[in-house]
Amino acid sequence: MLFDDFETLDAFGPAEVFGGFEAYALKYFSLKGGTITSRHNTVIETLALNEIKNHDVFLIPGGLGTRSLVNNETFIEKIKEEAQKSKYVLTVCTGSALLGKTGLLDGIEATSNKKAFAFAKDSGPKVKWIYEARWVKDGKYYTSSGISAGIDMALDFVADHLGVKSAEERASHMEYIWNKDKSYDPFAL
Amino acid sequence: MLFDDFETLDAFGPAEVFGGFEAYALKYFSLKGGTITSRHNTVIETLALNEIKNHDVFLIPGGLGTRSLVNNETFIEKIKEEAQKSKYVLTVCTGSALLGKTGLLDGIEATSNKKAFAFAKDSGPKVKWIYEARWVKDGKYYTSSGISAGIDMALDFVADHLGVKSAEERASHMEYIWNKDKSYDPFAL
Repeated sequence: MLFDDFETLDAFGPAEVFGGFEAYALKYFSLKGGTITSRHNTVIETLALNEIKNHDVFLIPGGLGTRSLVNNETFIEKIKEEAQKSKYVLTVCTGSALLGKTGLLDGIEATSNKKAFAFAKDSGPKVKWIYEARWVKDGKYYTSSGISAGIDMALDFVADHLGVKSAEERASHMEYIWNKDKSYDPFAL
Repeated sequence: MLFDDFETLDAFGPAEVFGGFEAYALKYFSLKGGTITSRHNTVIETLALNEIKNHDVFLIPGGLGTRSLVNNETFIEKIKEEAQKSKYVLTVCTGSALLGKTGLLDGIEATSNKKAFAFAKDSGPKVKWIYEARWVKDGKYYTSSGISAGIDMALDFVADHLGVKSAEERASHMEYIWNKDKSYDPFAL
């Protein structure tokens, strides 16, 4: 799920992980479709949210764009609908602030970017926020800490669904030193 | 420098690093401009290579698309021209195979993806290939190993040009555990 001023790596870190498997066919959506520009000037073509046909895995990145989107009722309502339909919902960074705003994370354990934690808390005051965590899993929700943590979380999602060997092979292919311990968070000060 | 079937994270890992600094204004190019599709179905709008006005830092990602591009004389000639004009040239993964093919790396130390090393060697037989290296610096050329290694290299480039503190701050902002030692390569078997 893309929007203007999303954080580039929040989306493309997990995309690199999932893109390595035939089990996952990646598509990029935005509220209305058309082009979306990331925080780092990447212009991406997207489909409209209502064109989603498969409600398997829904990933919401974070980024500066979330700061105004938490107050956009239409946007929040639409991602809520899609999240409810989806088998799994993954967030990276302040993507959990958007998801928190929908109310779907109320009473659910979740995490967010360490440098924007207050913003996440404000957006979802009833969420069971876990500060010190690289990522958190609770039922159908996987929420990761800031930016790069999304790669670790995506690999863990693969491990849960396709097996740990598949995740390890993907990390090796990506020459990525996978941080496997979701409770180890060197950025929680 | 993008092309169809480029490896998504090869480009967007470094973009996430450089995008954090006002010193770098990111632009995405391809041979003819227009839309380019990554290996993972990301459709990106690009400018044409001949629209490059600033020859500061030129980054070439790798990916499956490089396998045919090494034999595309027009493409190799064009990236050679741009690399010659550029102050610095950075490659990620098999991007060094493309650069190796131009001849500009002859006698220069460089590295590439561990799983595609033979391909890189074939493309640049006179390059001083370093197998065990996360990334290699030689003069104006920075070449990294596979995919994720591009993030570590980009942070080192920032350290060299904007200071190590800037690079550390960026890594921290990205919640990225920076592998600072360019000679430590756990993927060299």
